Formats: sequence, structure tokens, C-alpha cells
Amino acid sequence: MSDSRHAILLSAQREIEESGILGLRVAEVAAGANCSITQIYRYFRDRDGLLAQVLGDIYEEILVSTRQAFRDKVFSRDVVTIDDVMSSFPALFTPPAKRGTHLRLQILAASVNNEPLRKRLEAITQAELAEWNNGLDELESRLATGEKFDRRVFTMFIANILPYYRMLMGDKGFSPEEFFQFVRDKLTS
Amino acid sequence: MSDSRHAILLSAQREIEESGILGLRVAEVAAGANCSITQIYRYFRDRDGLLAQVLGDIYEEILVSTRQAFRDKVFSRDVVTIDDVMSSFPALFTPPAKRGTHLRLQILAASVNNEPLRKRLEAITQAELAEWNNGLDELESRLATGEKFDRRVFTMFIANILPYYRMLMGDKGFSPEEFFQFVRDKLTS
Repeated sequence: MSDSRHAILLSAQREIEESGILGLRVAEVAAGANCSITQIYRYFRDRDGLLAQVLGDIYEEILVSTRQAFRDKVFSRDVVTIDDVMSSFPALFTPPAKRGTHLRLQILAASVNNEPLRKRLEAITQAELAEWNNGLDELESRLATGEKFDRRVFTMFIANILPYYRMLMGDKGFSPEEFFQFVRDKLTS
Repeated sequence: MSDSRHAILLSAQREIEESGILGLRVAEVAAGANCSITQIYRYFRDRDGLLAQVLGDIYEEILVSTRQAFRDKVFSRDVVTIDDVMSSFPALFTPPAKRGTHLRLQILAASVNNEPLRKRLEAITQAELAEWNNGLDELESRLATGEKFDRRVFTMFIANILPYYRMLMGDKGFSPEEFFQFVRDKLTS
């Protein structure tokens, strides 16, 4: 990747951290990268194209690191039990996970009217789904004798929940313990 | 509600339909309502306050009408079976539901940095959760002999899914039939 393209992406990331996705101005990104607006348009076509690259990268990073963390934990032993699976689960309701949820939610919403970003998120989602299916194959092959799990809990439930709803429920909502008990029940039934 | 307040809300709704949530300009809302910007600020304090009212109303309308449609269907007979419950399920993957998903996603994302809107969504979500719990109590009391269901499927799963993820999965994702079979399995297990 050329140095100027890299500088533009770094500058755009800083801008998003400071002013949010909506506040991103191409002129500010150019100033921060010491380049011209024309140069940004040459690489990314327009503001939507720039957002597709930067937000897509952030989104991919969140998904890949979540999956890797799960893999590393659950495959740290040769034979895996359902209890190991449960204790390897990605955090959903901790403060850092909350910030990740806010970011994902805003990126998803931005993609509704940004076609290049939506195409990118589709590609990332479909690649991640394939990776999860590979990981779940391996998990099945390493499962302790007599144990079993319903992989649809991952591909239809966990992959589709938005923890933001629980935040809106406040203290009327379920606790993390109740949630993970529910997941465990449905994983093994 | 005063006529001018009502006119402002109608004008804001039209603006959102035409230009989206992000494109909403207070000056345009004022022009469309035949009033001054000052008047809008008197009623709603600022742009965030106006959005909190308009978007909160839309969000509430989606949730209430979804719940009412479910109630009307499932309680159309005195004794209810699990099959009745399944065939009364809110549509999730039809084209009109898709538009609703886009809108909800954008409203949720807007609430991350709009405190009055987030407070409003919290109040709506918690009130709706209470309504669902009442409905589920009634459902349990009317269930056919020998049938049972796990209400957590509603309060922890259905209430927390974002169908937009499935859209991103494209033809790599599960079919509606597979999804509802999964829900049925987990509802009764």
C-alpha cells in the first residue's frame, strides 16, 4: 500500500475517533494526511468510498479478533467440554464490549445508505460465517465423549443478536448470568 | 397537543422520509411547518430533542403495532397451541419488515449520541418488555393441555435479534424456514 493511501486511512481513523462517523469531513482527513482532497478521491472515489474502507476495516478487526479470542481459548486443550465452550464465549455485556457494540451499531446503520460499505460488510460477514463454520466443525470433532451441541445457537442466535437492546432494557432486562444459562440450555438441547 | 407542535412533528416526519435521519435540518422542518426555528426550539429545546420526539414516536409505533398484530393473531382462539404461536410470529424477513429493520437500525444508532432519544428508547423498550411479559402470562394460561414453551426465547432471543445481520449473510445465510424451525425447537425444549 502506498504511503499516502496509508496516511489517508490513518487520518480518517483519527477523525472518526474524534468526531464520530457522521462528523467525518474529507477536507479534515486531507489536512490530517498532508494531502489534497483530489488525492483522496483518486484512491477512494468519494466520501462513501473512504468510509467503506475505514469502517469496513474496523468492522473486520472487531469480528476477526472476537473469533480468534474464542478459538484460542476453546482450543487451548485437545478435548473440549460444553463448559469449556461456555467459558470461552465472547464477552457481550462488559464495558469494552459495550463500546464495541456502539461502534458496530453505527457502522451497520451507516451501511444502509452507503452501497460500497454495505457490499464490504456483506463480504466480511460471509467470510466470517465460513470461518465460524470451520471452527464449529473442528469443535465438534474435539468434543468430549457423550457431549454435543446445536451449532445453530451460534449461526442463528449469537451471530444475530444486538446487545444494545439489552442496554435499553436497563435493570428491567436479564442479567448476563441468566443470558448465558439460556445459551447453555439451548446449546445442549 | 397544540396545532403548531403537531405541524412541526408532521413536517419533521416528512423531512425524515425524504432526506433520512441524518439529513434532517431544523430550518427545513420550520419551513414545512410554517413556523420559526425559535418556535421549534421552544417546544423541543434543540435538534436532538426534536429527533427524540419524532424518532421515538416512529420506534414506539413499530414496536406497539408488532406486538398488537401478534396478540390479535395468537389470541383469536381461546386455547392456543405452539403451532398457533409459530404461525402468529411477527414477520422478520419480508420486504416490509426489511424496511422496518433499516429504520430501527438507524434510530438505534442515532440514539448512541443523542441522550434524550436514548432515554426515550429506554422508556419505550422497558414498557414494551412489560407488555410482552403480560402477554406471555396470558399465553401460558391459555396453552393447550400438555403444551409448554420457554418464554426466554421471546425475552432473550427474539427481543434481541437484529435481522440486518441475516441480510448481510446474503445467500450464505439461513432461510426463514430454517430460522423458524430453530425457534420452534428452542421454544419447546
